[in-house]
Amino acid sequence: MQVTSKQIAEMCGVTRGTVDRALNNRPGISAATRDKILKVADELGYRPHFLAQSLVKGETKTLGIVLFDIHNQIFSQLFHSFEAEARKHGYLTYLVLTNKDQELEVEYIHNLLNRKVDGIAISAVNFGSKFEALLLKAGIPIVSFANRISAKLPYVWIDDKQATKAAVRHIADKGYRRIIFVIPPLRYKGTSNIYVPEQRYKGFLEICGTMPDLQYDIVSDRSYLTSVLQLVTQSQERTAILCSSDIYALEVARHLKAHQVKVPEDAGIMGFDHIDVLRFVDPSLTTIDFQVEEIGRKAAELLIENIRGNDIPLRTNVTYSIVEGESL
Amino acid sequence: MQVTSKQIAEMCGVTRGTVDRALNNRPGISAATRDKILKVADELGYRPHFLAQSLVKGETKTLGIVLFDIHNQIFSQLFHSFEAEARKHGYLTYLVLTNKDQELEVEYIHNLLNRKVDGIAISAVNFGSKFEALLLKAGIPIVSFANRISAKLPYVWIDDKQATKAAVRHIADKGYRRIIFVIPPLRYKGTSNIYVPEQRYKGFLEICGTMPDLQYDIVSDRSYLTSVLQLVTQSQERTAILCSSDIYALEVARHLKAHQVKVPEDAGIMGFDHIDVLRFVDPSLTTIDFQVEEIGRKAAELLIENIRGNDIPLRTNVTYSIVEGESL
Repeated sequence: MQVTSKQIAEMCGVTRGTVDRALNNRPGISAATRDKILKVADELGYRPHFLAQSLVKGETKTLGIVLFDIHNQIFSQLFHSFEAEARKHGYLTYLVLTNKDQELEVEYIHNLLNRKVDGIAISAVNFGSKFEALLLKAGIPIVSFANRISAKLPYVWIDDKQATKAAVRHIADKGYRRIIFVIPPLRYKGTSNIYVPEQRYKGFLEICGTMPDLQYDIVSDRSYLTSVLQLVTQSQERTAILCSSDIYALEVARHLKAHQVKVPEDAGIMGFDHIDVLRFVDPSLTTIDFQVEEIGRKAAELLIENIRGNDIPLRTNVTYSIVEGESL
Repeated sequence: MQVTSKQIAEMCGVTRGTVDRALNNRPGISAATRDKILKVADELGYRPHFLAQSLVKGETKTLGIVLFDIHNQIFSQLFHSFEAEARKHGYLTYLVLTNKDQELEVEYIHNLLNRKVDGIAISAVNFGSKFEALLLKAGIPIVSFANRISAKLPYVWIDDKQATKAAVRHIADKGYRRIIFVIPPLRYKGTSNIYVPEQRYKGFLEICGTMPDLQYDIVSDRSYLTSVLQLVTQSQERTAILCSSDIYALEVARHLKAHQVKVPEDAGIMGFDHIDVLRFVDPSLTTIDFQVEEIGRKAAELLIENIRGNDIPLRTNVTYSIVEGESL
């Protein structure tokens, strides 16, 4: 049951005005009365009418964050820093998981808007003008990350093209003359928002175009593990396998090992993300670290800046770096 | 800005009553009028006054879940099933992370109550009568999991004592006569809620008490990796190391490997949790699976049952099973 200041006033034998003075720490009453009222309020479990205040102030001090899932550690790491930054500024966070279901994503956005969140951070699976319009007319600040949605919506991430180019250069510097790019999400082109994979794909093609003596293949089919194994075993040239995420790299490494292909002796592997669990993986994976915690923190910071009425940049890039492992 | 049904009425040249009929799908207006009104409402981004309705109905259709962190995959897996079950019933979920900070946990509970969540699921670091009282006077349904708080608060988990006994029996059946139990959280006894580690510790002592020919050591100090390595290398007897979570088991395995102790040839290792990332670990870890997804789903289901005014059991146990790997 909801305790009211009226009940507290009755229990303390004072007026509601006196109770309000005590609860809102306003002058005009004795310390003894104040203490007595606060004690009773506490015993009754009194809570200020946060919702009523929200209606008046037009703010709920809540944020929503829309993620695919938190099975992939880059998103659990990102949420940690987002949530901590939000709390620092007095906001609580709704976490909703779409599992890459486009209808569910739209349903969730409506649910968050109905609950009057003050802002939304989103890693989207939807794309196109209809989805863009839904977010632009939401009437609250929105920050996107991972998959970009629109040039009109603030976006925080890394420069995926440049990062992919750096990875290919690193592989070439290791003496590899043949490279397979494993990027399964590419096959959803046109049906889902694959902004990140597309950027990495473009970066890959651009850099390979500048390296005529580098052979390459792109693998994005559902049975990518079988395809990679075939390409590796059929080739005379020692091959490096660049994967668009650490999870794919770990799956590929496991599959090659199961078929007696040694890493890095027979084939090299490089991932993307630098997720925490890599510390338990052997041989250690060469990968790209892009400070996902900084992206989460920055997304919350920008969202709150914007909620406070300040302009925020439409594009914020964080830096990335290559992490040397034993897999190349 | 907040669009009102009044504005829609003006734009459509109808009364507010007509707009309300259309928005609430009540009879008494033509299909054409209804369609026109809904179209305009959609264009304006109209949203029903969810907060106002919440004040009237006394429910916000929101749940809060309090976790230590989601770095440990058992909690990200648990959240996935909790959030999905909540959504099925029309609830959105606040996820707050305490990182095992006791003051922060209390602050978060107050924040959730201030926002009038309909129920809270919690894996607590606080304990004792003061904390129990805070939750009992919250006035909303609360379900606990992992660390138990009070006999008066519903609790969903496994029988940790029985599961630990099953693990020790499994190790003994493998022919080991010496066992080290690695359980670092034990050192926080008296300062933090360590209900789960304590149950596992009690189960361990009970079963070892029934096996006179089994030597054992308990390791719970901060430098547990060094301690385990010493115990293993000093012993003539081949040793099995049972760890109170998979993460500790993976850390121990990595440390032993770095010091040329082969697993399982020189020492066996068994974990607890069966987290997803184990599929990338080699040799595969023998561990205990306790259906953490089912715990998450059940916690949400019970919470919502209770919110609807139905009684729920104070204790709900899910089942566990031993997962055979190559580490023993």
